[in-house]
Amino acid sequence: MSDIAVHGVGTSHFGRAPGTDLVTLAWTAVSEALADAGPGPIDAVWVGTVFAPAGVAQRVLRAMGITRVPVVTVENACASGTTAFAEACEAVRTGRYGRVLALGIEQMSTAFDGAITPEDTDPEGATGLALPALYAMAATRYLHDGAVTPAQLAAVSVKNHAHALHNPRAQYSGRYTVDEVLASRMIADPLTLLQCCPTSDGAGAAVVGPARGGAREVGVRGIALRSGAPWGRRSPHVWGYDIVAETAADALAAAGLHAATDVDVVEVHDAFTIGEIVTTEALGLVAPGEGGKAAETGVTALGGAHPVNPSGGLLSRGHPLGATGLAQLAEIVWQLRGEAGGRQVDGARIGLVETMGGGVSALDGNACVVAVLEAP
Amino acid sequence: MSDIAVHGVGTSHFGRAPGTDLVTLAWTAVSEALADAGPGPIDAVWVGTVFAPAGVAQRVLRAMGITRVPVVTVENACASGTTAFAEACEAVRTGRYGRVLALGIEQMSTAFDGAITPEDTDPEGATGLALPALYAMAATRYLHDGAVTPAQLAAVSVKNHAHALHNPRAQYSGRYTVDEVLASRMIADPLTLLQCCPTSDGAGAAVVGPARGGAREVGVRGIALRSGAPWGRRSPHVWGYDIVAETAADALAAAGLHAATDVDVVEVHDAFTIGEIVTTEALGLVAPGEGGKAAETGVTALGGAHPVNPSGGLLSRGHPLGATGLAQLAEIVWQLRGEAGGRQVDGARIGLVETMGGGVSALDGNACVVAVLEAP
Repeated sequence: MSDIAVHGVGTSHFGRAPGTDLVTLAWTAVSEALADAGPGPIDAVWVGTVFAPAGVAQRVLRAMGITRVPVVTVENACASGTTAFAEACEAVRTGRYGRVLALGIEQMSTAFDGAITPEDTDPEGATGLALPALYAMAATRYLHDGAVTPAQLAAVSVKNHAHALHNPRAQYSGRYTVDEVLASRMIADPLTLLQCCPTSDGAGAAVVGPARGGAREVGVRGIALRSGAPWGRRSPHVWGYDIVAETAADALAAAGLHAATDVDVVEVHDAFTIGEIVTTEALGLVAPGEGGKAAETGVTALGGAHPVNPSGGLLSRGHPLGATGLAQLAEIVWQLRGEAGGRQVDGARIGLVETMGGGVSALDGNACVVAVLEAP
Repeated sequence: MSDIAVHGVGTSHFGRAPGTDLVTLAWTAVSEALADAGPGPIDAVWVGTVFAPAGVAQRVLRAMGITRVPVVTVENACASGTTAFAEACEAVRTGRYGRVLALGIEQMSTAFDGAITPEDTDPEGATGLALPALYAMAATRYLHDGAVTPAQLAAVSVKNHAHALHNPRAQYSGRYTVDEVLASRMIADPLTLLQCCPTSDGAGAAVVGPARGGAREVGVRGIALRSGAPWGRRSPHVWGYDIVAETAADALAAAGLHAATDVDVVEVHDAFTIGEIVTTEALGLVAPGEGGKAAETGVTALGGAHPVNPSGGLLSRGHPLGATGLAQLAEIVWQLRGEAGGRQVDGARIGLVETMGGGVSALDGNACVVAVLEAP
C-alpha cells in the first residue's frame, strides 16, 4: 500500500518539432495531466530539463495560469524528468506540499545538430567519446565476452519499434527485421542508426498527491535516486551497470519487493540497444549475460515473461531528455490502469520505471532514478 | 531553537574571472565550507546555477571527490543559490539525508556581454525591458511618488561600497560620495553605473545538517520559498515588493518572530539601489516610503539600527547569480558567529537572508527565498 499516488499523467506527441516551442509542448502534457488528475490545486511544481534556457519553467507555467506557487527547475542529465518526479513524491511524502506537478520538457531539435558531445574538459571530450561511442564501447565489451551477439543487439530495436506500432505518440515505429537493423547506417560500431535513439522534442507531466484510494490512482511504492557515481574502473561491469543495480536495489527495497522479477511491466532507458540489455541485467530482470537472449527470444517483448518498453522506449517513442522520465512514468501509469490499448500488458499490477543519466560527462556524472508503481 | 543548522560555509573571491573555470571557483567555496564544517560525510548535494552548462555540477563535484551521492541541480533565477539551500534544509528537516551540501556557482563574465536581456517571447523582451530598465521603472515610480530622492537612491550605493571596504572577498569597494554615484555613467535612467550590480563570477557553499548544539553552528530558524508569482498589475506596489513581503512573512512566522525589526543583521538582494530600498520596506524593516531615508540617515548602515548588506551586497561584493544566495548566507553565518571582522554587527543574534529572482522573464517569473538564522 502506497502513501503517495500519481493522480494524473499527460504527454505531448514525441518527434522533431523545431517549428513549435516548449510552451506548446508543455501545454499539451500539463493540460492532459491536470484533466486526468481531476480538479484540485497545484501547490508546487518541479520541472526537469537539461538544455532548455534558464527561466523556461516560469514561462511555461505562466502560459498555463499556474502561478504563485514554488517552482524549482532541476537538471540531472537524462534522469532530469524522473528527478523532478522523485522530488515531487518526496514533497508529498513529507507533507511539505499537498498536490505537486512534475513536468519534463526538452526540445533537442533546436539544441543540437547530431549527437550530444561531451565538454572538452571531460575525459570523454578529451578522448573524443560522444555518447554513442560510450555505449558502443559497452556493446563491444559484451560482444568480446560473448555476452551478446550482433543479432541480439538488433533484436532490441526490432522489438521496441514493433511495440511502438501500438503507441500513437511515438516518434518512430515499424516492422523491421534484424538484418534491416544491422544494415542501417553505422553510427558508432557496432551500433547502427536503428540502434540509437532519435533527436526528439516533447514534454511529459504528472500530478502527484497523497493516496486517497481513488479508482484511477497509481501508487508510488518505492523510489530511489542516485547520482554523482563515477564508473568504477575496477568494476567487472560495463559503464552504467553498477549505478542501475544499486538504485534498483534501493527502490525495490523501499517498495518491499524481493526482486525485479516481481514486476509485471518495465520502462527502461534504452537510449541505445545495448542500454536496454545492460539494464535488464542490472535490474535483475534477467540473469547477467542473458539480456540479449531475452530480447531475441521474446522474453522482454509484449506477451513475454518480462515485457520491457511496451511504449517503444527511447529508441522508438523518442528521447527528449528532460521529458523522457515522465514519458516512461506515463506509460507505466497507463499500463497499471489497463489503458495502454494495443500495447497493454495483461493484468499488470506492479510496474517499474528506470532512467539513466550520463550527464554531459557520462563517465563521472552518472545519475539514475528507479520508481516502483502499483495498480489502483 | 532550530532543528537544522549550518555546519559550515565558504565562498570564492568575487569578481570577473573569465580566465578561470567553474571547477576552480567551486573548489574554493566547497573546500572552505567542508573545512569549516569539520569531518563528516556529505549525503547529498543541491547545486544552484542559472547559466552554467548542463552537467556542470557533476564535473565540479568529481573534482572534489564528492561522488556516489544524489546530486540535484536547481534553477530559480537569481534565487537559485538560496533555492539550493532551502532544498538542502528541507532534506535535513525531514531526515531524508543527514548532512547536505548546498553549492551556488556562476560565471557571468563568460555567459554575457552586458546586461541580461529577456527572451523575445517575454513581455519584457517584446518591449525592450532588460533587467536594469525594469528596476529603473520601479525607481522612477518611487521618484514620482516622492517616496525616494535621487540622493537617497545613491546613498544605498555609497553605504554598500563603504561596507565592502571591510570585505576582502568583495569585487568592488570604495569611499564614494552621493554626487560621485549620481555622476557615474547612466545605465537606465535614473540608475547610474554605481547603482547597478557588476558582472561577477563566483561560488558559495554551505554544509547543512541536524542541529547538535555545536559552538559554531548557526541555526536555521525559518525558511520560505515562493516563486511563479506574476506581478499583480493591480498591486499598489512596484514590481517585486509583494513577493518579498509574502515570502518574508512566511519565513518570519516559521521562525516564530513577529517582525523583521526583531532581526539584527540582514543581507538583501540589492541588484540595483532601488532593490534594496523596496526590499527593506517589503520586509518590514522600515515603513513603506522610508527605505531611501533609512539609507541616507544611516539607519541601514553598519552601526545603524538595522544594518543591511554589511558584506557590500550585490552592488559591491558582486552578483554571480547562482552563487549570490550562498554568499549572502555565508555573510550572515559569519556575522552570527562574530567572525565578520571590520564589518561585524555587534552582538548580532538573529540574521536574515533575502534573495529575489526575476527569472529571465522578470515580470512573470518572480522567485524569492527568505531565511532566518540564529547565532550559536
